[in-house]
Amino acid sequence: MQQRVSFITLGVSDLARSRRFYEQGLGWESSRRGSSDGVVFFQMPSGLVFALFPREELAKDAGVKNTPIGFSGMALAYNVHEQHQVAETLQIAEKAGATIIKPAQDTFWGGHAGYFADPDGFLWEIAWNPHFELTPDGRMILPE
Amino acid sequence: MQQRVSFITLGVSDLARSRRFYEQGLGWESSRRGSSDGVVFFQMPSGLVFALFPREELAKDAGVKNTPIGFSGMALAYNVHEQHQVAETLQIAEKAGATIIKPAQDTFWGGHAGYFADPDGFLWEIAWNPHFELTPDGRMILPE
Repeated sequence: MQQRVSFITLGVSDLARSRRFYEQGLGWESSRRGSSDGVVFFQMPSGLVFALFPREELAKDAGVKNTPIGFSGMALAYNVHEQHQVAETLQIAEKAGATIIKPAQDTFWGGHAGYFADPDGFLWEIAWNPHFELTPDGRMILPE
Repeated sequence: MQQRVSFITLGVSDLARSRRFYEQGLGWESSRRGSSDGVVFFQMPSGLVFALFPREELAKDAGVKNTPIGFSGMALAYNVHEQHQVAETLQIAEKAGATIIKPAQDTFWGGHAGYFADPDGFLWEIAWNPHFELTPDGRMILPE
């Protein structure tokens, strides 16, 4: 297998609510031709697709039991270029209806970060990391 | 917020086991300088980083309760170029120790797909989708 991910799909309990959160709240633009009433796709630069799909249908599609919502065991991260953008980005998310789980603060690994939860509780870490390169166009590059 | 994801971090119960699964099982190469005994990073083409981190520590870092492992409410997908590669890729994952959740089959949306679960139960869909473009170098491009 090549070292890549094609889609990240979040199973959400209210697709319209989640769509509003990511579109109007965070300012993302969904794909008009790809999306429908039943699924919403966001093209990420770099050939990754971020998708919202009803949680029940995701469980059904995979053939797994739809257990109650708890800790997903997973976090997505959005890295920023400047330390002060951590708090600013968390504010944007909070205004959009996110729950601030951990306010912006210095981290044990020498960075600055905080967490918000999206409408379904999915964790997003907003982080400033002085050790890893974040290119001007937003690509995260690990040290060689 | 820009429309992008910097990290996907899976919280795993046995970091060494998960590392073996993704490295030796799926053939991925972790970042030597970025990774340590406590965290493993995989550079994805396109500036996304895929990370493995102990589940308990991820919960602690975010400040959420570490609930029992169930349906994560989320799926990652790996798209392939040819229909026959769905079954082949699932076989590779099964040999690597994955559990086949749904064998390769035609889908209601006109594609061909199956699911495996990684050692922690995280769902990976292996899919062939004739409607969306998958570039030779593995970028997923939604219709304009």
